[in-house]
Amino acid sequence: MGRKPILVFQTDFTYREGAVCAMYGVVKTVDRDLEIFDGSHELPKFDVWSASYRLYQSMEFWPKDTIFVSVVDPGVGTGRRACAARTVNGYTVVTPDNGSLTHTATKIGIAEIREIDERINRLEGTRGVSVFHGRDLFGYCAARLASGIITFKETGPAYSVDEIKRLPIIEPSMDSRAVRGILEIDDPNFGNMWTNIPLAMFTKAGFSYGDMLHVTIRHGGQAAFEEAVPFARSFGYVEKGRPVIYNNELMNIAIALAEGNFSSAYSLGYGAGWEVEFAST
Amino acid sequence: MGRKPILVFQTDFTYREGAVCAMYGVVKTVDRDLEIFDGSHELPKFDVWSASYRLYQSMEFWPKDTIFVSVVDPGVGTGRRACAARTVNGYTVVTPDNGSLTHTATKIGIAEIREIDERINRLEGTRGVSVFHGRDLFGYCAARLASGIITFKETGPAYSVDEIKRLPIIEPSMDSRAVRGILEIDDPNFGNMWTNIPLAMFTKAGFSYGDMLHVTIRHGGQAAFEEAVPFARSFGYVEKGRPVIYNNELMNIAIALAEGNFSSAYSLGYGAGWEVEFAST
Amino acid sequence: MGRKPILVFQTDFTYREGAVCAMYGVVKTVDRDLEIFDGSHELPKFDVWSASYRLYQSMEFWPKDTIFVSVVDPGVGTGRRACAARTVNGYTVVTPDNGSLTHTATKIGIAEIREIDERINRLEGTRGVSVFHGRDLFGYCAARLASGIITFKETGPAYSVDEIKRLPIIEPSMDSRAVRGILEIDDPNFGNMWTNIPLAMFTKAGFSYGDMLHVTIRHGGQAAFEEAVPFARSFGYVEKGRPVIYNNELMNIAIALAEGNFSSAYSLGYGAGWEVEFAST
Repeated sequence: MGRKPILVFQTDFTYREGAVCAMYGVVKTVDRDLEIFDGSHELPKFDVWSASYRLYQSMEFWPKDTIFVSVVDPGVGTGRRACAARTVNGYTVVTPDNGSLTHTATKIGIAEIREIDERINRLEGTRGVSVFHGRDLFGYCAARLASGIITFKETGPAYSVDEIKRLPIIEPSMDSRAVRGILEIDDPNFGNMWTNIPLAMFTKAGFSYGDMLHVTIRHGGQAAFEEAVPFARSFGYVEKGRPVIYNNELMNIAIALAEGNFSSAYSLGYGAGWEVEFAST
Repeated sequence: MGRKPILVFQTDFTYREGAVCAMYGVVKTVDRDLEIFDGSHELPKFDVWSASYRLYQSMEFWPKDTIFVSVVDPGVGTGRRACAARTVNGYTVVTPDNGSLTHTATKIGIAEIREIDERINRLEGTRGVSVFHGRDLFGYCAARLASGIITFKETGPAYSVDEIKRLPIIEPSMDSRAVRGILEIDDPNFGNMWTNIPLAMFTKAGFSYGDMLHVTIRHGGQAAFEEAVPFARSFGYVEKGRPVIYNNELMNIAIALAEGNFSSAYSLGYGAGWEVEFAST
Repeated sequence: MGRKPILVFQTDFTYREGAVCAMYGVVKTVDRDLEIFDGSHELPKFDVWSASYRLYQSMEFWPKDTIFVSVVDPGVGTGRRACAARTVNGYTVVTPDNGSLTHTATKIGIAEIREIDERINRLEGTRGVSVFHGRDLFGYCAARLASGIITFKETGPAYSVDEIKRLPIIEPSMDSRAVRGILEIDDPNFGNMWTNIPLAMFTKAGFSYGDMLHVTIRHGGQAAFEEAVPFARSFGYVEKGRPVIYNNELMNIAIALAEGNFSSAYSLGYGAGWEVEFAST
């Protein structure tokens, strides 16, 4: 194609003040030709896990050379590394190396990673500023990379992919009695909860659409939800307000209340501490 | 002009997770040249009426060949039709046929409608997913249409415009005593309420700027608001916090509190059940 | 470069209804080539001060000929002037002259200002509408300017830059005992408070990273916050939840709670009434 890569940005900045605007201005000042998309600027504040999951959720739907800039960065200006990572299938992520590469490294694979050299990849005139690497370092460096002003190698010195900071990921499992996993992430708008259990494991367990399954969600040793729930193709197969197990857009098992909010109805969260189990009824 | 049509998306997905990002990635993977705009991703959840109204509100300000993708879709994955509709004046809407074409059909006019053929217009590799037609069907099909990969005819088989699902629309009326209509939609940010009464009907009734009018809003048989309110050119003609009747941006009559929130101050809603009447004082 | 200027929009409209969509449609109807960016559509409602500050915050990160359209306009349709202003360094702002040029005029400098002539720069067919100058006047006029359809001179008659409406700006000061200023704006997402005191004044006062400073914030004669707070390079240098003084992205002094919300924790606001003082401990 010969065209410059697209830049996709995700942050926890929101659009409520001028930060995203200044960051995008820097990109367009580097090169008017660059094309910018909002991934999201409404990630939960300081939630590196969400940043990591959202990259995985959308990355492979973009053209192969797309460059993602991910800035959820509670440690901005401290010792954590600023990096540029290249995936095994040709995407680039420019981000603090603070856990935001967890899902990309585990589920997609990172071929090469480099620490951004601030001496050559920091916006001029911002050397005294330590709190806005989104504008001064990540956005600026990604723009120069997309523009072809620097090569990937010129982002800075390489380090081992084994040194990438990874948050603990829990793998789903199954035995003769049940399929087990965690609530891995939420859909914050609709209140659906997504597990880390692939549809393929459900199929292997013999579960199919139309089945009624016994669902237990446990947190801190206590049951937060325990009910028989139908496994259906989509929300519209159950009555409004009723729970439904479905196959989500990443081919993983999820739970929703039809036109309701499952997460808030049962005060659910996500992460390693939120165990979920599906068994035949 | 010979350029590819613009794509304008509206959904109730929000930007809080990765759904919009994945949907736009699919579009740019189909064709890097395509230009995408956010109509809104903050439509009220499951509110097909709002989706319908917002299309009407903005459609005719866009270039004539613009393609709108509207996805407020509580019935995703069930029997409701997925469609592409062509208006009498050259716009295209790609959407579930669940009522979201109500205002477009009534106020603009639909010349031709086709049911999207999933066998040829579904993103490869997503056949097992029933919950994200925004990404896999509507966005993908609209991108192929905008790109020229398929013609409008190739979206799928035509059906009668008489079969389009329409939500009930109530028409305004007038007699010697009053002008009557409904609160048709809100301005959710400023709290203004927009009626379905055109300025032209006010003029015919002899109402003009500077008049004080008797306003009654009824819901469920009870008066929700009843007061004498001035009819003015804009908000700044009354004191802060005071109600004002004005001509809105679509040349329909609306009511606001100057720098206040009329909707929340009187707990108002919109739709067929919210009757409004204007009479001389 | 020879390319058409970028348009950057900021308003208090939000994306919750169709106003931004219609406004952008007008721009693309004027000229398909124009490139549009969201500055912010989530400025606090009616808050002209925020609009003024946000222009200053991001303007100089954009290419020199960028055109900003700023519409926070509680007086829409009344006597306030609609204007186009050219800065001393080559940017253009199209806005109601209601105070939104305060920071641009004071901190950057305005070389020339013209009142928009509605007879030639209003969208056809909208002459009866007085409430949506964002779409009908500012956006339309800015698009024609960016497109080259009109010159800056053709926006309308010039008036004196001395007539620009300016909100009162308070300057920071220092003496042997303390550095004083105001809380000038907030970071509404993270709850950080930005003062009007430049880092340079801190340096002149002899304050440096690592110092513990006595901070007093007063509002209405009462202390809203009074504590010894460390001055650090970034948030990560203090424990979570602890206050920290830092140099913000505009090289001004700011205060935050590390991964907390300083503004809401102490019910803080911004503006002339929010005095802040930093003294050695």
